Amino acid sequence: MNEIALHHDVAPLRVLLGTWRGEGQGDYPTIDPFSYTEEVTFGHVGKPFLAYGQKTWRQPDGFPLHAESGYLRLPSWDTAELVLAHPTGIVEVTEGTWDGTQLLLRSTLIGRTATAKPVTEVERRFTLDGDELRYTVAMAAMGLPLTHHLAAILRRVR
Amino acid sequence: MNEIALHHDVAPLRVLLGTWRGEGQGDYPTIDPFSYTEEVTFGHVGKPFLAYGQKTWRQPDGFPLHAESGYLRLPSWDTAELVLAHPTGIVEVTEGTWDGTQLLLRSTLIGRTATAKPVTEVERRFTLDGDELRYTVAMAAMGLPLTHHLAAILRRVR
Repeated sequence: MNEIALHHDVAPLRVLLGTWRGEGQGDYPTIDPFSYTEEVTFGHVGKPFLAYGQKTWRQPDGFPLHAESGYLRLPSWDTAELVLAHPTGIVEVTEGTWDGTQLLLRSTLIGRTATAKPVTEVERRFTLDGDELRYTVAMAAMGLPLTHHLAAILRRVR
Repeated sequence: MNEIALHHDVAPLRVLLGTWRGEGQGDYPTIDPFSYTEEVTFGHVGKPFLAYGQKTWRQPDGFPLHAESGYLRLPSWDTAELVLAHPTGIVEVTEGTWDGTQLLLRSTLIGRTATAKPVTEVERRFTLDGDELRYTVAMAAMGLPLTHHLAAILRRVR
């Protein structure tokens, strides 16, 4: 959080601002299920976007697992665009809707470096429910169709 | 900088680690020339990539201009991949070479949301020269071919 006024274009996203922390579970047909601790931050600098950052850690040793970073915009007050980069050599363009409590985004483009794994489609759903921010990620990868991958429940820590 | 050992796969990039700050100039046929203050950070968490973040500000008032964030990997010790997200609704996959002092990257894919400007190609060059990190960015956008856009000179601040 900071003292700069939130830009009018992203005013409906005010409820997401801050740092959220919690636990998640990962599953996918090609890997063993896993649990993780996660921190997600939505920040702003007074411009018409939010900066989004995510980090996850293995427990109990705190070894870093995944990270991703990008930016969220609202072309209108009920449509949303999120662009993301991943350390796995993958970029995502996702587009969808924001209804005041739920952000539902589907990939319109996935880009990969020559050495990245074949992820071809992603669906991301963030849902505010009281004090909780829940999200799920479904992914089409390794030749599989869009399949559940991640689910986490986070609470605002600052 | 931190106490975690740098991953072997990105060991050649050790010279880039830290936060760099300096001044740059922007030009493009479709806009007025502009100057900016910039901070670039290359960080790591012990995994086989560096996290890359960049922010620029207008002077003298410090109004935020651009930002970008992403991740840098070395498929081999002399080839490099950088994936980036921009608050303008653009993602980049760039690939190229690292020779110990120069990172030369050319876009292999540019992805855009429905509302992003038509950027179609990017070339990024980072060059270490003594205490300085210099970079240039050329861009094909708004229907123009690859054309010089940014040049900056930065010095490590931490």
